[in-house]
Formats: sequence, C-alpha cells, structure tokens
Amino acid sequence: MANNLSSPIPEKTIERLSEYRRTLLKCHAGGITHIFSHVLAGMHGITAVQVRRDLMLIGFSSDTKKGYDVKVLIDFIDGILYSEQPMSVAVIGMGHLGQAVTRYFNDKGLKLRITAAFDIDEEKVGRRIDGVPCYHINEFEKQVEELDISIVIVSLPTSVASSLVLPIINAGIKGVLNFTSAPLNFPQGIVVENYDITTLLEKVAYFVKVADN
Amino acid sequence: MANNLSSPIPEKTIERLSEYRRTLLKCHAGGITHIFSHVLAGMHGITAVQVRRDLMLIGFSSDTKKGYDVKVLIDFIDGILYSEQPMSVAVIGMGHLGQAVTRYFNDKGLKLRITAAFDIDEEKVGRRIDGVPCYHINEFEKQVEELDISIVIVSLPTSVASSLVLPIINAGIKGVLNFTSAPLNFPQGIVVENYDITTLLEKVAYFVKVADN
Repeated sequence: MANNLSSPIPEKTIERLSEYRRTLLKCHAGGITHIFSHVLAGMHGITAVQVRRDLMLIGFSSDTKKGYDVKVLIDFIDGILYSEQPMSVAVIGMGHLGQAVTRYFNDKGLKLRITAAFDIDEEKVGRRIDGVPCYHINEFEKQVEELDISIVIVSLPTSVASSLVLPIINAGIKGVLNFTSAPLNFPQGIVVENYDITTLLEKVAYFVKVADN
Repeated sequence: MANNLSSPIPEKTIERLSEYRRTLLKCHAGGITHIFSHVLAGMHGITAVQVRRDLMLIGFSSDTKKGYDVKVLIDFIDGILYSEQPMSVAVIGMGHLGQAVTRYFNDKGLKLRITAAFDIDEEKVGRRIDGVPCYHINEFEKQVEELDISIVIVSLPTSVASSLVLPIINAGIKGVLNFTSAPLNFPQGIVVENYDITTLLEKVAYFVKVADN
C-alpha cells in the first residue's frame, strides 16, 4: 500500500480477517455455530497458530473447549473492519473488469456497496449496469458529493488512468483501489492500493519456476 | 501464498520487480536509456532505499553516476522472473473477469501468454475470445497436455471452484491463481495464490476508517 498509514493492525492480518469473515459467514449460513482454530486454519491453508495470533491481536478471546462462537466472531471482526456508517464505493471504468468487480461485490453481502459507476461510453452512461447507475465521468465530482462516495475502484485502460488523479483528489475521495498497471500517486491522507493483476500472475510463474529448479 | 515454497527472494520483492519491469518497459519505449533509483522509486511511491535494496538482492549492480541502464535492467529482471521456456496459461471461466484478465494480459507483451480458455457456456465453447480458443471444461486434461499449460487462472463462480481441484491436480498444473472467494487447497508442490479481490477493497476501507479516526 503506497501511503502506509499507521495502524495498530498489520496489512496482512487485515487481509486474513477479511478472508476469515467470509469463511465464517459461509459456516454460519450452513448452521455451524462453533469452529476450532485449526479447522478455520485448515480452510485457509495456514496454521492454527497464525489464526490464534491474528485473533489475539484484535483482542478476541474465546472459550477454547467448544471453539470460537461463529456468530460472535463475525460480529467482532465486523467491528474491526467496518465503520458504523456503511461506505459507498464507485467504479470508474465499466469495461469487463469494472463489471466483473461490480457484480462480484454487490452479490456478497458486504458492508461496502458499489453505488455508482462512471464511464465515457454512450452505450453505458445513463443506464443501470448490474443494478448500479452509470454516470458520465464529467459528473464525477457532483455525484461523489451527492452519493457520499468515499472509495473508488479504478478499472480503466492504463493509458487514461493518470488523468483521474486530480478529479479524485478534488472530489475528496479517501481511498483508491487501482487495478490499472500505472501506479497512481496521491498525497498523504488518501489510502491507495495499487494492484496490477499482472503482478499476481508473474509471482505465481516465478514460484513455479523456482520449484522446478 | 498458501504453499510457501523456499525461494531466495521474498514475495514482496518479486511483486516489486514485476512492477519495476513494467515501468522500465514504458521508459524504454519512450526513449529513456538511464534511470536513477530515486526516479524509479518516485514512480512507485516508495523510497530509493527500497529500490536499491531490491536490486542488490537480485545481484544487480550498476554505474551509479548515470543511473541504471534501462535495457540492461529489464533483461536482468527478465532473467530472474521468467523461465527460458515461455509458460502457457489457461483461464478457467470466461465470464467478465476471465475476459478482462485475458484481454489485459495478452495486450501487455509479457513472457507469459494465455493460450486457452475453458467454460461450459455453449455460447463460448468452440469460439475464440480475444484471440484465445475456448474449450469445454470436459476437455481440460486433454488440452493442458496438448498445449503444455503449466498455470491456470480460476475465475469461475465461487460455488463451483472447488470441483476443479482434482482436475487441476490430475492435469499436472504447477501454479494456480485463484480469483474466487473460496480458498483452494492443493498438495505441496503446486503453487497457489488465492486472491479474492474483495479482500483488497476491505483493506482499503479499513485503512480509510483508521485514517478518519
């Protein structure tokens, strides 16, 4: 993460809490009321020690005889991850990636919701796509204010992404998830996650290569 | 990464090398022959010390008066990241995400190429999508062998992803990039990167929340 803000909880722990939460939601939906740390760990391919360390770090303690209470743990993690006020998210760029992300998130019952999309394509502007209204990018600042959007997902072609830095700053956006392959630099105070998916594939390929040698 | 194979180079360094490489390619295309560590660092929102440390770790040294030779550094990073034989990649699930990923990668001039796609949708099977032939998932093992595919990208609905674990193992796949929200567990020896994009958004939201308090 580019602007590394001070946080009591490390980034990697936040990622795992988000993953535990999704697994716990599935368990809860399936009628499972309690879960042991080693079971939760096994479902994520990590050690029970790691799970216990993460939960200790957020101050969660539990009766270890029956394992963790699934519902109580979900609510506890919610309290760590989410604000009391739900945050609104906008997608900039409704190509394949933008549409995949929108459908994906809004199906998941998260406390974050994608409430607006922006594009320049006349086929998209003025329509609802997967339930989300798509506005022209010229309306960005106006709609961010009206809809109280605090986070944007940038899923535009890389070549045009940098032209969005100023509008994003001017609109008062607080967090940016950037999927283009151009790292976007914002002033201190705006949280940025630059995530080029190419990097993930190159990483897998590297570790395959190392394993082969 | 679930199956953490021993590697002389940490995961985070591999990620940054992949990112430096893309930036250097753009510089090279723009006629820039040399670049200083602090310039490269600035383009990624990190410190020059970090860049120098990463390059020292891979054994790259350079005449510091003119900065790094861009072309030489690209070739050096290529030697670290890639095998001599290019690796073939297949996408399983050609919905919005699968198509976005395919178009995205094959436009980028990477040494990795997506050479096949798999789906069950009759509208897609038997066609070429963005230049990549789409096969029925029933043909998975056969095509993996014929096309010498070593890595798969899983971009299916989460609910069906786990049914792919056995076919992936049986086909001899060596690396998996999993975009579904179900962590997939493979035996030791198969490199797995489970990357639910929801996690990224939840992480941004958490750091926005922490910054607000």
